Amino acid sequence: MALRGPLFRLLRTQLGHTCHQSRAQSVAVLGAPFSKGQKRRGVEHGPKAIRDAGLIDRLSALDYSVHDFGDLNFHHLEKDEPYMDVKFPRTVGGANKMLSGAVSRAVGAGHTLVMLGGDHSLAIGSVGGHAQQCPDLCLIWVDAHADINTPMTSPSGNLHGQPVAFMLKELQDKLPAIPGFTWMKPFLSSRDLVYIGLRDVDPGEHQILKNLGIQYFTMRDIDRLGIQRVMEVTLDHLLSRKQRPIHLSFDIDAFDPSLAPATGTPVNGGLTYREGIYITEEIHNTGLLSAMDLVEVNPVLGANREAVEATASLAVDVIASSLGQTREGAHAAIDEIPSAKDDTEQLCL
Amino acid sequence: MALRGPLFRLLRTQLGHTCHQSRAQSVAVLGAPFSKGQKRRGVEHGPKAIRDAGLIDRLSALDYSVHDFGDLNFHHLEKDEPYMDVKFPRTVGGANKMLSGAVSRAVGAGHTLVMLGGDHSLAIGSVGGHAQQCPDLCLIWVDAHADINTPMTSPSGNLHGQPVAFMLKELQDKLPAIPGFTWMKPFLSSRDLVYIGLRDVDPGEHQILKNLGIQYFTMRDIDRLGIQRVMEVTLDHLLSRKQRPIHLSFDIDAFDPSLAPATGTPVNGGLTYREGIYITEEIHNTGLLSAMDLVEVNPVLGANREAVEATASLAVDVIASSLGQTREGAHAAIDEIPSAKDDTEQLCL
Amino acid sequence: MALRGPLFRLLRTQLGHTCHQSRAQSVAVLGAPFSKGQKRRGVEHGPKAIRDAGLIDRLSALDYSVHDFGDLNFHHLEKDEPYMDVKFPRTVGGANKMLSGAVSRAVGAGHTLVMLGGDHSLAIGSVGGHAQQCPDLCLIWVDAHADINTPMTSPSGNLHGQPVAFMLKELQDKLPAIPGFTWMKPFLSSRDLVYIGLRDVDPGEHQILKNLGIQYFTMRDIDRLGIQRVMEVTLDHLLSRKQRPIHLSFDIDAFDPSLAPATGTPVNGGLTYREGIYITEEIHNTGLLSAMDLVEVNPVLGANREAVEATASLAVDVIASSLGQTREGAHAAIDEIPSAKDDTEQLCL
Repeated sequence: MALRGPLFRLLRTQLGHTCHQSRAQSVAVLGAPFSKGQKRRGVEHGPKAIRDAGLIDRLSALDYSVHDFGDLNFHHLEKDEPYMDVKFPRTVGGANKMLSGAVSRAVGAGHTLVMLGGDHSLAIGSVGGHAQQCPDLCLIWVDAHADINTPMTSPSGNLHGQPVAFMLKELQDKLPAIPGFTWMKPFLSSRDLVYIGLRDVDPGEHQILKNLGIQYFTMRDIDRLGIQRVMEVTLDHLLSRKQRPIHLSFDIDAFDPSLAPATGTPVNGGLTYREGIYITEEIHNTGLLSAMDLVEVNPVLGANREAVEATASLAVDVIASSLGQTREGAHAAIDEIPSAKDDTEQLCL
Repeated sequence: MALRGPLFRLLRTQLGHTCHQSRAQSVAVLGAPFSKGQKRRGVEHGPKAIRDAGLIDRLSALDYSVHDFGDLNFHHLEKDEPYMDVKFPRTVGGANKMLSGAVSRAVGAGHTLVMLGGDHSLAIGSVGGHAQQCPDLCLIWVDAHADINTPMTSPSGNLHGQPVAFMLKELQDKLPAIPGFTWMKPFLSSRDLVYIGLRDVDPGEHQILKNLGIQYFTMRDIDRLGIQRVMEVTLDHLLSRKQRPIHLSFDIDAFDPSLAPATGTPVNGGLTYREGIYITEEIHNTGLLSAMDLVEVNPVLGANREAVEATASLAVDVIASSLGQTREGAHAAIDEIPSAKDDTEQLCL
Repeated sequence: MALRGPLFRLLRTQLGHTCHQSRAQSVAVLGAPFSKGQKRRGVEHGPKAIRDAGLIDRLSALDYSVHDFGDLNFHHLEKDEPYMDVKFPRTVGGANKMLSGAVSRAVGAGHTLVMLGGDHSLAIGSVGGHAQQCPDLCLIWVDAHADINTPMTSPSGNLHGQPVAFMLKELQDKLPAIPGFTWMKPFLSSRDLVYIGLRDVDPGEHQILKNLGIQYFTMRDIDRLGIQRVMEVTLDHLLSRKQRPIHLSFDIDAFDPSLAPATGTPVNGGLTYREGIYITEEIHNTGLLSAMDLVEVNPVLGANREAVEATASLAVDVIASSLGQTREGAHAAIDEIPSAKDDTEQLCL
């Protein structure tokens, strides 16, 4: 395991991007133990599972100053009737409002933010809070699913399948006024979003993706192009016009279920370990990652302890790699290879 | 999970190929519970395992009219002595004669045929019956093995290792008059055949492949070229001169044993899930698939129920993908993204 | 399973390389049951596990004359205090001295050598003994780790993380005079070495790799370039100036832990089965493999018998593929496909 952070962070700082300038050396970890965006209980234990897998130590080893802000304490509403077919609208809306504020504050204070879900409906607040500080951010969404249903197209009514629709300016007039979401308005253009890893797309989602001309890469595209080319096109699409902050929203179900079994909606034929790490290495190497989500780790759904630990450990690898852990290794700027000397004591490490 | 069939099937119909014209919207499923082409019992339960894994529902969801013709009822001969080293020649020959007739009728009636094995000796009858209706068909054989031994070269004498030799015109004078096979004669040219996935080829088979100049892609070739290029060359080899019906003969042992453990002759280093699905997507996208076999699922050989279910479920994925299920998603031709409206009732799905 | 050896071995012989001329048809297997280069007990049982997985039969089936020289009988020192932080220096040094002599004799006698470890500290003696006979050899090191720490940079003091440092002429003045190693001196230039598979490189190692300009391919590089291109560059780097003997030092932990679980320092994200086999096929196809190590199979560390057998069986596949087993198949030079004849007896195989 090896570190490459410092040089890249230095470079990043020198880019002079306002939204990045002060955040180089400091990471904020924020837990969001929330599950009302979908049906299966357990995903609210995701933050604990990921921390237990050693997240904080791993980030500290990357020479970051790590600030663990603990878990948000979400309000539970006694009464939250569905609106149309949308489940728990006020609960999900309220949680995202709280999360949005916390993320905005953390980013504003100069941290690189890591949000631990929780289900993927939380991206509304996480990306939204990030956008309050960095309105020109772009979004990379790594997921088996597009999560871009509107309340009108959603087959299930679960909000974890709809967060992107809430973000997009182009869908503003396609969304009804849902209770719980009056505090927010869309903040993202569809051209500032790229999907990677799709393989289970609903018909209504497919229609939206095509209508808006969104750039996306399904597993079939990765099979055709290779992950190297996919990342090249992704970063070119988002950054060629200008360097700007990246929000990475990573759903653990982007990985193949053999690697990430403890999640709510697994789909066969997912990313390999190496593809997932390659994606995050490339994002880190831009020097522009400003905030990220790691969502949908559900410790209740693993078949056994090994399955849960493997999934949580994979989540830690994804976060650490996004923040600069490398496979190539790295070394501090030392001039020479240490020489052999006769004085043994002097050499003991 | 998503559908793309309709548009492609429309296109296919418009190609005006006689052998295809009427079959676009209808799939025939035919079970062939047969195991005498090899030594291990259990493969006769393949059709039931694949149906139990949800085949019919999955095909119906693709908007096909699905006709399940049930299982063929093969005759069991009391006495069937080996001819030379060939095991059960009359039993295998008789089963293939019956299968050939059933396949010919189904294809002639306008269905796209799906044959569920059973062992791979059944391809003699399946491809043969298909060729009676579509004499200009081409054959894509996805398998760890070449199954092209003659009775003279076969190390085992099992007929599931020899079906391709029975089909090829170029090998006509290399085959003795085997009891049980007097009803048939070779119908395929070696240039109309491509193998994908080979990794366990007998010396006699290698000699035949090289002598006849057959186009084949071993796993090493896939490692070198990538599955995208392999499919490009495969389809170019078979279809560049003219568009014509495709028979896909898919042995589940083409997949890696970690994915398809419940089969009789597994070989390490097989296709990934994604490679297998990519192969079938590409075949579907030609609009020319006319019949397919899915063979060698042996529910008796899995280490446990999970292993059997994983293998059968994989078989269903292969068939569904061959018939138009996509990873990218699809949508019907609707003009606009549904708009938000105030009348809630009107919007409920 | 198929053989391709004879033709390539003939070609190799005709290259007229002195160090190769007489060794074409004969393989020497040498067990090195040694574990003092690292902390975890059990790796000394590696040679037995690999033999039990059928190594000798597999090599015999490749038409080699196989000479199994059994296991070396290493001396156990009662007292072997650390030198600086280096553990068991005299024991490791002595074992490598003995191994070096045995390898040199086997190579000198015309065998292609297969050394079965034991831990990777044994490469000092194995490559060293090989170099005594073939001073112009080149080295391909397939491993998750670079094993190039010096006693000054090693975080652990374990010698299995340091063997390459002992070999390299360029590091001669960076190594202290360690007890147990006075018999040897560096014999390899850093430009004659290529790494494949790295993914856990210590900071001191990274510094050495960069300082010496060593050619290496991490898993990230394989993700970017593909294994086909990696092997092309590797062989071009080592052989473009001149054809010369290859030493392949293969640590089983180069593979992904899902494939090779029974090893001491597994790291996620390793080689696939097919990548590992592709590497060895390409090395075999040069006709220049002169000796190889297969190390770090530790039968005590598998979670169960299946895990141990899978790891040992993988080791056998790597060795057999390095020595000419192919996935494409092969056949002896027979003029024609056997014809059908009426005289049954004459045809029985």
